[in-house]
Amino acid sequence: MAEVSLYSPFPASEVAQWNFETDVAIIGFGATGACAAIEAADAGAKVMLFERNSGSGGASGLSGGEIYIGGNGGTDAQRAAGFEDSTEDFIAYLKAAGGPCVDDTKCEHYGREALNHFAWLKAQGVPYRGNYLPGKHIEPTDDSTLIWSGSEAAAPFCDLAKPAPRGHVIQHMGWGGGRPLVDVLEASARAKGVEIVPDARALALVRDGDRIVGLVVRIDGQNRFVRASKGVVLATGGFVMNEAMRRKYCPETFRINDAIGDKDDGSGIELGVGAGGDAIHMEQFFTTCPWTMPESHAYGVFVNVQGQRFINEDCYHGRVSRCAVDQPGGKVYLLLDNAHFVQPMDFARIEIAGTGETWEEVEAELGMPANTLSATMAVHNGHAKEGRDPLFDKKPPILTPLDQGPFIALELNFQTSYFSFFTLGGLRTSAQAEVLDRSGKPIAGLFAAGRCTSGLPAWGHGYSSGLSLADCTFFGRQAGIGAAKG
Amino acid sequence: MAEVSLYSPFPASEVAQWNFETDVAIIGFGATGACAAIEAADAGAKVMLFERNSGSGGASGLSGGEIYIGGNGGTDAQRAAGFEDSTEDFIAYLKAAGGPCVDDTKCEHYGREALNHFAWLKAQGVPYRGNYLPGKHIEPTDDSTLIWSGSEAAAPFCDLAKPAPRGHVIQHMGWGGGRPLVDVLEASARAKGVEIVPDARALALVRDGDRIVGLVVRIDGQNRFVRASKGVVLATGGFVMNEAMRRKYCPETFRINDAIGDKDDGSGIELGVGAGGDAIHMEQFFTTCPWTMPESHAYGVFVNVQGQRFINEDCYHGRVSRCAVDQPGGKVYLLLDNAHFVQPMDFARIEIAGTGETWEEVEAELGMPANTLSATMAVHNGHAKEGRDPLFDKKPPILTPLDQGPFIALELNFQTSYFSFFTLGGLRTSAQAEVLDRSGKPIAGLFAAGRCTSGLPAWGHGYSSGLSLADCTFFGRQAGIGAAKG
Repeated sequence: MAEVSLYSPFPASEVAQWNFETDVAIIGFGATGACAAIEAADAGAKVMLFERNSGSGGASGLSGGEIYIGGNGGTDAQRAAGFEDSTEDFIAYLKAAGGPCVDDTKCEHYGREALNHFAWLKAQGVPYRGNYLPGKHIEPTDDSTLIWSGSEAAAPFCDLAKPAPRGHVIQHMGWGGGRPLVDVLEASARAKGVEIVPDARALALVRDGDRIVGLVVRIDGQNRFVRASKGVVLATGGFVMNEAMRRKYCPETFRINDAIGDKDDGSGIELGVGAGGDAIHMEQFFTTCPWTMPESHAYGVFVNVQGQRFINEDCYHGRVSRCAVDQPGGKVYLLLDNAHFVQPMDFARIEIAGTGETWEEVEAELGMPANTLSATMAVHNGHAKEGRDPLFDKKPPILTPLDQGPFIALELNFQTSYFSFFTLGGLRTSAQAEVLDRSGKPIAGLFAAGRCTSGLPAWGHGYSSGLSLADCTFFGRQAGIGAAKG
Repeated sequence: MAEVSLYSPFPASEVAQWNFETDVAIIGFGATGACAAIEAADAGAKVMLFERNSGSGGASGLSGGEIYIGGNGGTDAQRAAGFEDSTEDFIAYLKAAGGPCVDDTKCEHYGREALNHFAWLKAQGVPYRGNYLPGKHIEPTDDSTLIWSGSEAAAPFCDLAKPAPRGHVIQHMGWGGGRPLVDVLEASARAKGVEIVPDARALALVRDGDRIVGLVVRIDGQNRFVRASKGVVLATGGFVMNEAMRRKYCPETFRINDAIGDKDDGSGIELGVGAGGDAIHMEQFFTTCPWTMPESHAYGVFVNVQGQRFINEDCYHGRVSRCAVDQPGGKVYLLLDNAHFVQPMDFARIEIAGTGETWEEVEAELGMPANTLSATMAVHNGHAKEGRDPLFDKKPPILTPLDQGPFIALELNFQTSYFSFFTLGGLRTSAQAEVLDRSGKPIAGLFAAGRCTSGLPAWGHGYSSGLSLADCTFFGRQAGIGAAKG
């Protein structure tokens, strides 16, 4: 008898009895699984969705519910706010955000289809107020729709693509739009007759020859065999909650401590690789420390322990944070003057490390050699008064002299401050969400989307809010469409 | 009929005829394969070694023939030069060099056995003159044995382990000791009756149940089936010559252009993963630009395009180079004064980017804002006069003021200067060179060592010369020992 294992598909020839029969089986009930289910059901397939928890949610349910959308002249919210977002600029930004890990084909497919995708989300019942909230926000402070959620207006991105805000948030007061987003998608899936099986953990895929034809799930302490005549969709999330996988594939994440995920243990990646799939860019991760809360801190200057700047601080908070974690010495400092300092939020665990009437005093209080931090600030402030940043190309209005004492240095410590993170690497899939084998060919009957794949947000340094949910929802749909075709 | 493929083992049940029968089959005839063959033959096994080229060599044959050895009171060469190298310090350095990617078990195993390994190499006939050559060398300028070949004496390594030189080089005039090293190992293998089959490219492994029992090789345009009753050893090198694999797993290498390898196309990694193996730390790579040639340039100061230092320049040239390639802007500058500047070597393609009577003039000629590079050099020189470097902890005598004009900035450009590189990620193996599956269990009958595995030099930023050949030769031996046991 073959072993039931995440690491190798179970042979169909050894299945004694199929406990369930369906056309499409989906593993995981976050936004990805829900969207796959809706599309597969719309295509006429019988759909069963298996979720290890007692209800829907996944990492999507923990998110802000923000989706990165643009192109094709702009969404209603973009156009109302005066942003005519071209498909060319949208795709150019997606590619820049993917950096060295980019999948051009996915960027182009999503770039062309994003407006149709937005309409589809609305058709499922996702509500959007339709307005634009200017400023620098991690999430809207109210129930607004459209915010700047990436590095669009910052160098080098603004030189590669005309900037536009593209973070589209479900109508919901404040943080936490991910939960109602999944609720809406779940309601749509249920209305279309998707059979949802909670408390069912996937243990193995089932293979017949070269084709994935089902899976083994654990329900009530028993192994149950599910035949999926048309396809299986992996929608299980990343591997941020699996320390052994992080050690093997993404050890840089041990610099920081606040893993964000549900039960994201990489099981879908293991299932896919075991079926012959390819796991790529496994070292990539997103991280952010909420240093732009309060918003006036967005005007601060970052230096490393050598007193050097390392980034244009006007780019996305997660890009700044990811570059911060690359700096030596286990911490970075956020420098603020009296005009911009406000007490940091408690949950961020950002502490005051030094103060002074001059930048020289701050420098001395941090134990830095003379003419390091203070020289950095003299150069920064001198240029900022002229409205330019020749070193990092930060732009006004975020670019501003910090010259109103007293001055302060806040410490963002990688081990003790709140640096949330999740993994970005995963299965290599086509733009149709087919799981590709290591030679690049689709594995028959196997589809995947969301954070168990390497997708639109492939590169930690280029992450923008909403890219993951764009990836989950759009490529989740492609997975459902593909699986229903068989 | 099953497909013959790198990506999935061929089923033994479908082998119509075994063309060759052996106890141990080894794929690849660099230093790893040779050492595996010698040990397997010494254990009494019948050994066949398959090499796709017409002769031995691999990437080992292109190397300097330097092996990282120490501990246990020191080698003869270390002791003669006054270095009592403890096993504890040796292991501590190996672990530091492995950084976040370290395999503690391998460091400990090699750390305890390295002196025995040195004796074994000598017993195979590898000649060592036995003397120490002080100074900063990429390779000995003559036929000396022992040089500093890593970051042992530099921060932070010198604070983690008592420094000692550990680069042991085969007696050979100047660069290129790798070729004679492989020649000696080949002669030993042949003398022990190893059957060497050149012009034989491995196409697939053969599996019987859970056990690897042979391979398929291409010889004279035909697929030939090799039964290996005891074990198969993968000794095929890394994937630096495979652009598709680099794009998927190690895209940062596209910043630089000078791949160093033979036919290192990752085929052994594919074979191993196809058999259920785990490929780890695939994003890691070694790179170096020969900036310490001429040696007086070792006294230079590096700055990035913002005019900032980024490393203690007294550490290993490859660590400096790897950190350089992390810097933004596609290039870094090596700053020298008149006391240290000599025309760079042509092959390095390092160009003069700016000159001046003062550092302010150099700064201006490079187009940098005032008080950036010049402030960096003022801080550096001021502290260097006091014999300290509070920012990066560079030590004398490499730490020295650069204050004798005229001054010069050399450009190390990632795209046009000579940045050689090779990949470090690969199969996850035990300290006994067993290929581990993704659950951590050995795959029966399958062994691997050298650059098709993630080994001692697991982390690009911690690389030291001789770590790869230590890995190849020592763990190659373990692979041969394990395979012969069956």
